[in-house]
Amino acid sequence: MREHDDAYARAGVDIAAGNEAVARYKTVLSQWRHPDQLDAIGGFGGLFRLPGEGDRALVASTDGVGTKILIAAELQRYDGVGRDLVNHCVNDILVVNATPLFFLDYFATGKLDPEIAAEVVRGCALACRAHTCALLGGETAEMPGLYAPGHFDLAGTIVGIVDVADVPKPECVEPGDAILGLPSVGLHTNGYSLSRTLIPREQWNEPFGDGTYADALLAEHPSYYASVRAIQRVARVKTMSHITGGGLLENIPRTLPEEVKAIFEQTRWNVPPIMRELTRRGNLGHEERYRTLNMGIGYTLVVPFLDAPAAIAAVPQARVVGWIEARAEGEPRVLVHEARE
Amino acid sequence: MREHDDAYARAGVDIAAGNEAVARYKTVLSQWRHPDQLDAIGGFGGLFRLPGEGDRALVASTDGVGTKILIAAELQRYDGVGRDLVNHCVNDILVVNATPLFFLDYFATGKLDPEIAAEVVRGCALACRAHTCALLGGETAEMPGLYAPGHFDLAGTIVGIVDVADVPKPECVEPGDAILGLPSVGLHTNGYSLSRTLIPREQWNEPFGDGTYADALLAEHPSYYASVRAIQRVARVKTMSHITGGGLLENIPRTLPEEVKAIFEQTRWNVPPIMRELTRRGNLGHEERYRTLNMGIGYTLVVPFLDAPAAIAAVPQARVVGWIEARAEGEPRVLVHEARE
Repeated sequence: MREHDDAYARAGVDIAAGNEAVARYKTVLSQWRHPDQLDAIGGFGGLFRLPGEGDRALVASTDGVGTKILIAAELQRYDGVGRDLVNHCVNDILVVNATPLFFLDYFATGKLDPEIAAEVVRGCALACRAHTCALLGGETAEMPGLYAPGHFDLAGTIVGIVDVADVPKPECVEPGDAILGLPSVGLHTNGYSLSRTLIPREQWNEPFGDGTYADALLAEHPSYYASVRAIQRVARVKTMSHITGGGLLENIPRTLPEEVKAIFEQTRWNVPPIMRELTRRGNLGHEERYRTLNMGIGYTLVVPFLDAPAAIAAVPQARVVGWIEARAEGEPRVLVHEARE
Repeated sequence: MREHDDAYARAGVDIAAGNEAVARYKTVLSQWRHPDQLDAIGGFGGLFRLPGEGDRALVASTDGVGTKILIAAELQRYDGVGRDLVNHCVNDILVVNATPLFFLDYFATGKLDPEIAAEVVRGCALACRAHTCALLGGETAEMPGLYAPGHFDLAGTIVGIVDVADVPKPECVEPGDAILGLPSVGLHTNGYSLSRTLIPREQWNEPFGDGTYADALLAEHPSYYASVRAIQRVARVKTMSHITGGGLLENIPRTLPEEVKAIFEQTRWNVPPIMRELTRRGNLGHEERYRTLNMGIGYTLVVPFLDAPAAIAAVPQARVVGWIEARAEGEPRVLVHEARE
């Protein structure tokens, strides 16, 4: 069992089971692969070549918002989760450079409250509109016996499009490249099972930072679409990662070749107060916190070192948070040098 | 409150709430409509014009399997629900004549059992392969606190493609056209909350028909793709409907113009034994049973009367189950003449 399993296991999330499920899926999927499926980059979105033409691919991704919805349901704050979900999906397919076309939601509950359902869908619609992405459909399921009163689940699927020639090429990444980081605003949509064990319900309305714990926990997952497009206009972006569940330690290797490693210097960005609080309360080790939480970086882009200044001029909140080095076999693929407290 | 609400309300499903949610969604969606969204036919799948060309559209639909999964979970029969889900989605977009391209699943549970998850996904993969449709991705969510032990939810999204010129034109339907029906094999993916109240858990393993109640309840939702394509080769298909939740009474009007009505003659098809049993146990009225259950017809196609013989020769299990008549304002849009018992 790896070190980082501890905190998650305490929260009821079984990372070993997740890894085993992934291994079993691979066996299942090895039995059926459509000839128009293209190799995805790190699994952030699936690529499918458009039939009848060779130069464009559709990119699709399904995701949920995890147990953040339990906090939203408890606090009766419903519209944010729709935005969380759409933005999460937009960021996922942005990793392969896709432009969103349309989105569909799945809202499931035990006893349908039309007002709550409409608020959730309204959040989806607003986030879709912000990306000129159609909210093309959805399913509202009322399933007595499956969900407890007041509980609901929310998932969504996004479909985008990309010119195959524009899909990033991680194999071009080389030692000396800079890693740009775009700041996170909180947990986004990951680490909530852990957070709910470390910050009990009765404290959610207590003051924390500029607001309450609830505000910090429900801070909305931002879209990095506009920032990434602005950087791409002035810099050559070789690869990107959306920092979701698994943190920097698991998401960065998904989009890097094995011959390089990523070095992060945490003096170069701010760790959000909610991450520091969770680290303190859970006594989370280095591995645990960088594998469970985003720790302040929501999205990364690898660019040639000389392109970094123009990128930062274009998007001031972007920072050079690390760089690429050559990696010998057996070395870790990601290293985070932490600032002294 | 309409007559048919009674049985569903007894089962914990609130149809009035569902209708109110739909009304609220319309308000939300009126605030954002993408210019490339095309008018859908009866809401079976959303249409989105492919950017950069005028003649093709993507068609997408998200759905779940409803509380059928509670029966599957209880009986530990997991692979069927994946096939149920994919076939359901294939049929939904087939209504607008779309050919499936790819599918993504969403599997959510409280405590992840990798074996169960893989069995569910295997069912999805097999049904995808049967349609030469890619299983392009998916999400497995472990959410302690949201799902009870042993419970899970399953939803999926399908994306297909269609030449815009090939989208059926319900406005061509005219009095005298024949309605072809393709037989259902059971409840498919609807009416399970009702069934679970009428057939208690302790009877599921008792004999019923050729097997047990469990066998009848879990009979797989079939795909009508091959049958529909075979009929289209020999007959001019004007409009189609997938008979899901809402039965003939609600699904047929979704794809018919207001100036006509559909007349069904139930002497022309067989009502599956499980439907008769549910009708008997729940003392379901005519409206109730034809609005809650498919009553033996899984999919319908409207063709010119003279094309019907060729269609039936091509697909022997297809039957002429009714016809189209002119409709005066205020008349019902669907009438089912039942056979005498």
